Amino acid sequence: MPTATIVSDVYPSRVQGVASILPRHDPVVYGSGSGPLGAGQLQSYEERGFLQVGDVLAEDEVNAIVDDLVAFTSRPEVRADERTIVEPASDEVRSVFEVHRINETIGRLATDERIAGVARQILGSEVYVHQSRVNFKPAFKGKEFAWHSDFETWHAEDGMPRMRALSISVSLTHNFTYNGPLMLIPGSHRSFVTCVGQTPEDNYKQSLKRQDLGSPDPASMVKLLEDAGGEIAECTGGPGGITVFDCNTMHGSNSNISPIPRSNVFIVYNSVDNALVEPFAAPTRRPEFIAARDFTPVGRRTAK
Amino acid sequence: MPTATIVSDVYPSRVQGVASILPRHDPVVYGSGSGPLGAGQLQSYEERGFLQVGDVLAEDEVNAIVDDLVAFTSRPEVRADERTIVEPASDEVRSVFEVHRINETIGRLATDERIAGVARQILGSEVYVHQSRVNFKPAFKGKEFAWHSDFETWHAEDGMPRMRALSISVSLTHNFTYNGPLMLIPGSHRSFVTCVGQTPEDNYKQSLKRQDLGSPDPASMVKLLEDAGGEIAECTGGPGGITVFDCNTMHGSNSNISPIPRSNVFIVYNSVDNALVEPFAAPTRRPEFIAARDFTPVGRRTAK
Repeated sequence: MPTATIVSDVYPSRVQGVASILPRHDPVVYGSGSGPLGAGQLQSYEERGFLQVGDVLAEDEVNAIVDDLVAFTSRPEVRADERTIVEPASDEVRSVFEVHRINETIGRLATDERIAGVARQILGSEVYVHQSRVNFKPAFKGKEFAWHSDFETWHAEDGMPRMRALSISVSLTHNFTYNGPLMLIPGSHRSFVTCVGQTPEDNYKQSLKRQDLGSPDPASMVKLLEDAGGEIAECTGGPGGITVFDCNTMHGSNSNISPIPRSNVFIVYNSVDNALVEPFAAPTRRPEFIAARDFTPVGRRTAK
Repeated sequence: MPTATIVSDVYPSRVQGVASILPRHDPVVYGSGSGPLGAGQLQSYEERGFLQVGDVLAEDEVNAIVDDLVAFTSRPEVRADERTIVEPASDEVRSVFEVHRINETIGRLATDERIAGVARQILGSEVYVHQSRVNFKPAFKGKEFAWHSDFETWHAEDGMPRMRALSISVSLTHNFTYNGPLMLIPGSHRSFVTCVGQTPEDNYKQSLKRQDLGSPDPASMVKLLEDAGGEIAECTGGPGGITVFDCNTMHGSNSNISPIPRSNVFIVYNSVDNALVEPFAAPTRRPEFIAARDFTPVGRRTAK
């Protein structure tokens, strides 16, 4: 007689009723091996859920990337691609997804040891690119992005089993407090906030432009901020710096009415030991340009 | 035989065609008399077009104002009043205009020597309240406010003849860089940016919620920022502090997705020697709760 095995999800979300704040069941730093980061940086990352490192890319490297992306995103076939997201109420490109596959420059960046090596060091294994994108937050009319944990969405909608992934944002422009920089709640990666509401079919088409469903309720956000001693970290700094943040660190950004645009490249690395299964709280998988299912480890490449 | 006198407007706006940046024709600091500000503060105000002073009100004074306003804005007749502006897409009070006339606490604040005395000292004459309001920038969903010079609107739509007015913002909450603080372009008060576009009838009903018409074109904003050496000043600080800024200083604010709301009281003082005439670039006057035409000087009152 077959026996049904009930596997309970330790990170339930898109629930009915009331949100709750659950403990993290996974390590933050998996590796103890060598890599680009020092022991102090690893410790800070483990405690705060993110790390900023300045001047990782040289000025001429950033300039080359920017020049290439300007030409790339002006091509009609790129603008028309479903992987390209256009700003609501304007005609400007806001993001291009899976850009490491369709743009050679970003493809090289994704395998650069100074970037991918950080991911391997923290996640303690080979890694693959779960998602990549370039983000352009335009001057004057850059929109805010609501608070969210990436993992909440990747788990619920993409079937990422555990917290063993991270994002690396490479700044292409100056980030000031007033041009809509990435904001993070330090320490929030240690709590999983369940989000209320069922995931509709093809939710991603809406959620890429505006995040509602995977955003925590106000009371949970107030609690996370209390736990952080009231600190909201704003990732300011110059072009060529990187911000590494855990898949479960709560983050968002305000609008940008300043005359200074803000652009960056995001590369999400997931451990090959944490490959996607079926979505935990969504009727269907999201497209592979948002959540890759090619789990081939990224190669090892030393720049230049 | 009657002779027509052509009086040309030195501050033309709502023009057709292309925007231009014109010089200011008026002093910034009119007074040389005594008042709450020291010589260094006056000089900084003259050069930068604004001044922050911390701890002008004591904590218990701020608490009393906040408590009073919470009760006041929950009253149904206040919420239904045309002077009360409700946040688009929510039911929260965003601003209450002419609040110094309908709320006794703010009425006292407007005549407080620590506030009104600053206006008299800078403007070098008796002053009256041109406009007052309380602003509530809610947590999580506070909206951005586009760049603008107040004087541009007050001149075009209210008939304020010259630049001899200022705003004093009294902080009721903490202002951080991440909760949508007031942003100012230092030195921008010395240039008048003409805005393109004709003023429609009853423009104020729209513009109080979203400023479009009186906002400069991007190229002018880039030029102002260049002239400021790239500096955007963010008015951060604790409750009880004040920000004084010239009627022509370019300012705006980003959204507030943070869990921390931001509230303040704005009081606009105009010199009694600069009383309103007919609008310079609008078909009709705005209502008096937005642009007072009672030019009675505010009294002199020492707090407590």
